[in-house]
Amino acid sequence: MIKVTVPATTANLGPGFDCMGIALQIRNTIIVEESDKKLEIICHDRQSKYIEKNKSNLIYKSIKTVFDLSGKRLSGLSLNLINEIPACRGLGSSAACIAAGCAIGNALSQSNLSINELIDIGAQIEGHPDNIVPAFIGGFAISCIENKKVIYHNSKPHSNFVFSVMSPSFTLPTIESRKVLPDLLTRQDAVFNISRASLMTAALISGDVELLMHSCKDKLHQPYRKKLIPDFDFIAEKAKQGRAYATFLSGAGPTIIAVLDKTNESFTRFMEQHLFELKNGWTIKTIEASCEGLEINV
Amino acid sequence: MIKVTVPATTANLGPGFDCMGIALQIRNTIIVEESDKKLEIICHDRQSKYIEKNKSNLIYKSIKTVFDLSGKRLSGLSLNLINEIPACRGLGSSAACIAAGCAIGNALSQSNLSINELIDIGAQIEGHPDNIVPAFIGGFAISCIENKKVIYHNSKPHSNFVFSVMSPSFTLPTIESRKVLPDLLTRQDAVFNISRASLMTAALISGDVELLMHSCKDKLHQPYRKKLIPDFDFIAEKAKQGRAYATFLSGAGPTIIAVLDKTNESFTRFMEQHLFELKNGWTIKTIEASCEGLEINV
Repeated sequence: MIKVTVPATTANLGPGFDCMGIALQIRNTIIVEESDKKLEIICHDRQSKYIEKNKSNLIYKSIKTVFDLSGKRLSGLSLNLINEIPACRGLGSSAACIAAGCAIGNALSQSNLSINELIDIGAQIEGHPDNIVPAFIGGFAISCIENKKVIYHNSKPHSNFVFSVMSPSFTLPTIESRKVLPDLLTRQDAVFNISRASLMTAALISGDVELLMHSCKDKLHQPYRKKLIPDFDFIAEKAKQGRAYATFLSGAGPTIIAVLDKTNESFTRFMEQHLFELKNGWTIKTIEASCEGLEINV
Repeated sequence: MIKVTVPATTANLGPGFDCMGIALQIRNTIIVEESDKKLEIICHDRQSKYIEKNKSNLIYKSIKTVFDLSGKRLSGLSLNLINEIPACRGLGSSAACIAAGCAIGNALSQSNLSINELIDIGAQIEGHPDNIVPAFIGGFAISCIENKKVIYHNSKPHSNFVFSVMSPSFTLPTIESRKVLPDLLTRQDAVFNISRASLMTAALISGDVELLMHSCKDKLHQPYRKKLIPDFDFIAEKAKQGRAYATFLSGAGPTIIAVLDKTNESFTRFMEQHLFELKNGWTIKTIEASCEGLEINV
């Protein structure tokens, strides 16, 4: 039996499109047993309806990718899934499945791949490394892909920060949320994001609150994606009134995340009052970053 | 009498277009005396031919800007200039003049402006803050302008790094070097620079050499500007052979800077062999970053 747990991740963080992510303390658990049957995928929780129970399952496909790379043959499998990460909400559920699948494939095939090799494979499957890296190693990660290898920097986000995760009842598949992005942007907008992403890197590492407030701004994706998320501007404005340091779209959305000081205890109640007035059943939950990434017990 | 010294600065650093800069240990000195004459600008060094000796002089104009803001009247001035920073070479000579002028204007007008207020004024004059911030405060700076105010992060670049400054005999005014840049770029190229600039921020602060090697890459300006600088690719390739961690165009060029480990003592001799074969009289000088920015003695 293999047991894997893997964290949710929030990517982009405002200016860091496709290259920044933070692991959060919400975790999926996957229990794996080799079986005589071809493939059995069991999931009884609320995410079950989003989960393929056949060979199209993302965990299975990722396991299979590692087996194919190793040249070994994958036998029957039983996957028991306990999901806390909501699917299609911009909290890295796909990256969690891919990371888990790669790690399971590595263990079952006895490929003995390093964590960096697994990250490279995972990022190839996902297409971008921003969720994959923190899903594997936890913390705050900046990453890019170069010649099919992921280059990354990993650090602990400053311990003063907590993350208020606000999610509506509707889902937004990443593929839909990418369609609204323009292919070209002005040099001015690019420089806007380059400067803010660099400043935000310094802010998250150092815990510089004022810098975080100024740097968490984006001209590359949020101005386009927020049209798909009713009340985005209202929620961001209220979060500011509630003394959030920064508010951004989590991944491709629709989840919105506010970065708070951990002493800001009134925030949740303040936001609840406003979120409950809105359509789309918004919920709010404040959690810490996860310094632990994927964990595997064989 | 007022004496100001102000450092050269290298901006952009590869991916950090218009938002990153490092102060270098090359300094201009300006000695100021109030005089009955309207304006006297004295400069006897090799930079003299690039320097306006009238009210178009950038130091004078910056002094005047601070006086105008203070509502006070500027009387006659004698400016004695000792320039070590070469003009129009991409080493922040304009920013040095502006920073010096703002600081002199502040002292003479007794405006009592803070360093941040002077940075705001200087960045407005220059149009971008990347050289201005390190010229004023030294070290490694990331910056952006928001509502006419400069937001910045300042840190010491890791002490293992030294900077090999390679300059040709020709000049390249920034205005010419900006003309070749396209106004639009692909989202992919923008993300390329956003990720590398963020990674480079982490690399320069932490001294992570491998990360610096991977992150110092750019798709926003160098691919276009290098056409104006014969042998750019050759020099970058040789610098790599000479074990430079990173090579980039300094500011708008034509100077090329290689970041080295301070123990890499063979680099200068290695590069000299190759630079001397080229046209355009390339010179090389290896210097440290300057943790000290502008200094003023009244």
